[in-house]
Amino acid sequence: MAMRKIAFNDITLRDGEQSPGVNFFPEEKLEIARRLAAMRVPIIEAGFAVSSESDWKGVNLIARELGGPGGPVICSMCRAQKKDIDAAFEALRPAARPRIQVVLATSDLHLEAKLKMTRDQALACIADTVAYARSLVDDVEFAAEDATRSDRDFLYTCFKVALDNGARTLEIPDTVGYATPMDYAAIVSGVLANVPGADRATIAVHCHDDLGLATANTLAGLAAGAGQAECTINGIGERAGNASFEEVIMAIRTRPGQWGVEADIDTTHLTAASQMVERLAHMAVAPNKAIVGRNAFRHGSGIHQHGMICNADTYQIIRPEDVGAPAANLDLGKLSGKHALKQRLDALHIDLSAPSFDRFYAEFKDMAAKKKLILDDDIINLAHHLAG
Amino acid sequence: MAMRKIAFNDITLRDGEQSPGVNFFPEEKLEIARRLAAMRVPIIEAGFAVSSESDWKGVNLIARELGGPGGPVICSMCRAQKKDIDAAFEALRPAARPRIQVVLATSDLHLEAKLKMTRDQALACIADTVAYARSLVDDVEFAAEDATRSDRDFLYTCFKVALDNGARTLEIPDTVGYATPMDYAAIVSGVLANVPGADRATIAVHCHDDLGLATANTLAGLAAGAGQAECTINGIGERAGNASFEEVIMAIRTRPGQWGVEADIDTTHLTAASQMVERLAHMAVAPNKAIVGRNAFRHGSGIHQHGMICNADTYQIIRPEDVGAPAANLDLGKLSGKHALKQRLDALHIDLSAPSFDRFYAEFKDMAAKKKLILDDDIINLAHHLAG
Repeated sequence: MAMRKIAFNDITLRDGEQSPGVNFFPEEKLEIARRLAAMRVPIIEAGFAVSSESDWKGVNLIARELGGPGGPVICSMCRAQKKDIDAAFEALRPAARPRIQVVLATSDLHLEAKLKMTRDQALACIADTVAYARSLVDDVEFAAEDATRSDRDFLYTCFKVALDNGARTLEIPDTVGYATPMDYAAIVSGVLANVPGADRATIAVHCHDDLGLATANTLAGLAAGAGQAECTINGIGERAGNASFEEVIMAIRTRPGQWGVEADIDTTHLTAASQMVERLAHMAVAPNKAIVGRNAFRHGSGIHQHGMICNADTYQIIRPEDVGAPAANLDLGKLSGKHALKQRLDALHIDLSAPSFDRFYAEFKDMAAKKKLILDDDIINLAHHLAG
Repeated sequence: MAMRKIAFNDITLRDGEQSPGVNFFPEEKLEIARRLAAMRVPIIEAGFAVSSESDWKGVNLIARELGGPGGPVICSMCRAQKKDIDAAFEALRPAARPRIQVVLATSDLHLEAKLKMTRDQALACIADTVAYARSLVDDVEFAAEDATRSDRDFLYTCFKVALDNGARTLEIPDTVGYATPMDYAAIVSGVLANVPGADRATIAVHCHDDLGLATANTLAGLAAGAGQAECTINGIGERAGNASFEEVIMAIRTRPGQWGVEADIDTTHLTAASQMVERLAHMAVAPNKAIVGRNAFRHGSGIHQHGMICNADTYQIIRPEDVGAPAANLDLGKLSGKHALKQRLDALHIDLSAPSFDRFYAEFKDMAAKKKLILDDDIINLAHHLAG
């Protein structure tokens, strides 16, 4: 099966920063962007330049430090307003490959309740602002906010106007996390089939996780023909956040035939990137977060621990080292079996005869029913106690 | 569209407890089970009775306290061994509707590397142990561990043997989180089409989140004809955990036409259930966790905050009260706009003239660029400072 190459646009520094309570200082943005560049992320959305002086500085700093000719595309978000585009253009000046992203909502709900615009006014606004952005830079992305709740034919018309005015990338944001894999794939296919010229543009997928479907929707959109995935490290972002970069890339790597796409990313940076974003965003990663959670490669039950001791493939589909994580770990607790206990005793150089081991195991199970966590010290103490 | 009714089997107390480092004491299991019963969860998998005295007590306590005639089905997991089934049966004695779940791995990898069994031995073991469980209770579930990596024809044969020996529920565990929505749906359809009698049994979906796809896979399996979803609160479980109960039910509720199924669950308990499991498992829920994360209904950017002030539907697809969460919240920070600041000033009874407001807004933006979080106290102090 021939694999189609897709590009990641990492939006941790823009949509990720929209996480309630998160504020990345410019130097922090640069630190994260350096890690993304080391991962070979081809497009970095560095911020929303007009929104504050600090955000403008962050975009500008990344454009200056990382935006050289061999570096990633550096992007700033803009509302469909000239002052936003001017601020983005100025901030992006040092970048060899600047990208301006112009956003306008296209759902009737957003047009009426928030923007107080008619559909015709929206089309005129898209034409004006995309053309203006294109007069400043070659690389313009148009995002139809709330695309998944927009009238389908009107969405196609908006994208046609954006293309006619010079946009090269058409983004389909599932702004409120409403999509399912089925309908999101249908929208991508619909855009490709119904917007003249869309096949020569890049379709960008951008999904939110309000229903826990952001990763699946992103992959469904890529399989349907999209060429760009917009993701954040740890899935941070507005409300329940965006599609997780680490989940999307590892799903592509682990099941390559399922979506028919590939991407050139050095995944060994994922764990370090996750920990950096966790620290700078002050947003804890859940232990059971896929790929980057501290339990992602830990095995709790005796059945699973026995399997891991026999052959790691029994309970592991990703090698921890492929994402820069420490090796798999077998925790001891009340569900642990004899195999894991024996392995831990060996590691601690505690040598027991068979009858002593059975007695030790019984005492261990008794202790495990009363303690939340069993530490190596507990094992050593128990061995001393039984020997004494 | 006619909706097919599906049942949830909450496995927080069994697979959820397999989370590395988690240990629920019997009284804690009962506390969680009471909340699940209040939510109207029809099946509660209470533990793995043979694994420890504490787990046996937990299953027994729940069977006794909640397993009355009008209560939920109470289930214990068993390996395909008579001693496991005996322990489960004894623990479940007080329950009016006890269920015994018998698990045997069916993938060649698990049979060879872990169980050291041939396929024929596995079939004989399934026949023996399912028949034995069925001699004790009416309600027997057979789970084909590592089903998604099992030879498809052999999996069908295993399920046929289980049905022929009295199993009523056939569980398809994606034990290592390897499935995608496409291939998981195909396995469910394949079982229904190729296992004689499967259409009269219940197919149970059981998905792990190693690739971030557990929720999508669960929904795909239900859409393909499964009648039971096995989920955990907060998605806790081995490694990256299981499908999140709260995500699956709210995806069904929010997009009912997409999967064609419905379930009778009182979702207003979800937030309380999440917080209880977070506390008793000592496993933090990420702020950006769908449905139950503390940011799930919080809006960070000025664009989104403005939309929420105009009409909450612009950026919200679930009403917080439907999952027992506090109302949506607009946080102030460097990405906030004038609309949200004005609303907060009004709430704090700070009344400013238009020129004062513009000056206040400029100072607020300056402060927001330097502080990670803006609290109400910061707003009040700034107002005093500008007035003084």
